Formats: sequence, structure tokens, C-alpha cells
Amino acid sequence: MMKKKKVFMDAEEIERSLTRITYEILERNKGTDNLIIIGIRKGGVFMAERLCEKISAIEGTQIMSGTLDITLYRDDVLTTSRNPEFEKTYIPFPLDNKRVVLVDDVLFTGRTIRAAMDALMDFGRPERIQLAVLVDRGHRELPIRADFIGETLPSSLWENVVVNMTEDRNKDEVVIEEG
Amino acid sequence: MMKKKKVFMDAEEIERSLTRITYEILERNKGTDNLIIIGIRKGGVFMAERLCEKISAIEGTQIMSGTLDITLYRDDVLTTSRNPEFEKTYIPFPLDNKRVVLVDDVLFTGRTIRAAMDALMDFGRPERIQLAVLVDRGHRELPIRADFIGETLPSSLWENVVVNMTEDRNKDEVVIEEG
Repeated sequence: MMKKKKVFMDAEEIERSLTRITYEILERNKGTDNLIIIGIRKGGVFMAERLCEKISAIEGTQIMSGTLDITLYRDDVLTTSRNPEFEKTYIPFPLDNKRVVLVDDVLFTGRTIRAAMDALMDFGRPERIQLAVLVDRGHRELPIRADFIGETLPSSLWENVVVNMTEDRNKDEVVIEEG
Repeated sequence: MMKKKKVFMDAEEIERSLTRITYEILERNKGTDNLIIIGIRKGGVFMAERLCEKISAIEGTQIMSGTLDITLYRDDVLTTSRNPEFEKTYIPFPLDNKRVVLVDDVLFTGRTIRAAMDALMDFGRPERIQLAVLVDRGHRELPIRADFIGETLPSSLWENVVVNMTEDRNKDEVVIEEG
């Protein structure tokens, strides 16, 4: 059975959102001092890379970045996986006194972000953790909010929000699938 | 040297806020099914008790409540305390599939709330954790937000916000102290 699909953001809209978020990050943090961009696997990694590139291009400096795999920290880990992989986390510096911008593609229940904050704390005590997401689809189950939001999509619980990025899907788009 | 003080909320304003928050909690959760009110020590405990009483009075049912001491979970625990006490946490039921309303007096950096979410997860997997605070004073260091807010006070970092409650301070009031 074919799922009904609707494009919510196309490549141009995604590009514009990421550019705007880049400037918001720079403004809020008054530049790039102690700034680190960390993408959450898998969805946030490409978005984090793009934000890094954009910031580097604007500021003319290389910016620190990392990747976080939160499989082990999720509160549902016992029910969904018995073989959590850990090697996918890559944070090659202590986070003490750093300003971390945590990046994910979709913000939904907030449980992934809670787990990500937990995981980050194992790498030191950041001065600040900010959250950047491409799509905020609502339906929060924890008191979490994003600092930087591409688009807000008050989607139904029965819909699926899929973010495709050129890096692995040949195309930038945010698609809504009805289940 | 005397500190300059300003009353930000008096007893009547606090009472009105708590009543309004009570109705918001009932509306958002469509009643009291699986609802649990948990106050964070020390500041949130009396507020949690008052919300419980108000909900019980309106709904005519006793509502579950608990108390959380997050000393051990704070990311700064090693630097501020070498003797964390634990006995002050009182949650006499598993939180699996419960709707938890976490209560604190002041929301500031968000670090207490992150620690509280962590602590709650040790008591099961709540269906939802909502956050109720009397004063949101801004200056967040983590991507945390409250669901139910008494008053928003964009206070200066150099000010101190003190919530007094009759139960231990003889008086209901929120005071701003300039340092």
C-alpha cells in the first residue's frame, strides 16, 4: 500500500532555514568563541556539518564539531535494542565551559534530546547547551524546547516526518507521510 | 550592607497563579488519571503540596504526590557538596506510564530540571513529564522550558529571586534581591 506523501520543506526552504539558523547561532553566541556544533546520529549529523560549513564560511575560522550517538542513553534502550553501538560518538575534546549547539533533524517527544544532554555530560560540563532542529513537530513528552528552529510543523501523531538530506538521500526535503 | 529588595509577587498573586496553574494542569491532562505531582526539594515541595490540595478540592479525589531531592544528580555535585543526602526523595510508586508534573519554585538555568528528569527516570518511564514553576527568570543554559508558569521575570543575572512560602517563611511572596 502506497503511503500518501507531502513535501513540507523543499531544498531551497531547507537551505534558507539553515542559513537563517546559522546567523541566529552567531548572534546569540556573539561569535564562535568556545562554540561547538554536535550532531545527533543519525538525523542531525549532516545538518550539523552544514551549519559548521556555513559558520566557517561567514566567520573565516574552522569551528569545532562532533557527533553523538545516544543509543545507550535512551530510556527505551532495553525494549528496542539489545546491541547498542557506541563507536559512533565522536567528541574529541572536553566540553567543559564550551557552548554546545546540539543539532537534530526533528524534535518530537524530547526523549532523544534528554538522552543527548545526559550523554554530553559525560564529556564535561558545558557552559551552555543550545538545541537546533530543522523541524519541530510538537507532541512533547518532556519539558524540552529548541533554541533554533527551522520550521514548526504541528503534525498529527499518526503522521511520520522524514528529513532527507542530499548527503545520503540524493535530495534535500522534509516529507510528511501519512501512516 | 542591606540588600535592596522588591516584592515581585505578593500572597494574592501567588494564590491566583497557583489556582490558574491548577486548572491548566487539569485541562492539559484531561483530568487526574495517572497524574502525579512531584515537588523538587526544597523550593518546589510546598508549591507541589498546594497544587495537590487544589486539584483534590476541585476533582474530589486524592492525587498522588512525591518529593524529589536531586542533590546527587546535579552535574556540579562534586564541586558544591561532598555529602549528598538522599533520604529526602519520596516517590512511593513506579512512574511507568504516569503523567508527572514536576514542580519547582524558580526556573533559571535549567540544570536542576535536567537533573530532576534524570532522577525521575530511575523510578520508571513516565508517559510524560511536565514542568510547573512559579517564576521563570530566564537565562537558560539548557534547552528546557516549563509547561506551566506563574510569572515570567526576565531578571538580571546579578539579581537573586527568592520565593518565600508561608509553610516555612510565614509569608507568601516572591522577592527580588539586588546583590
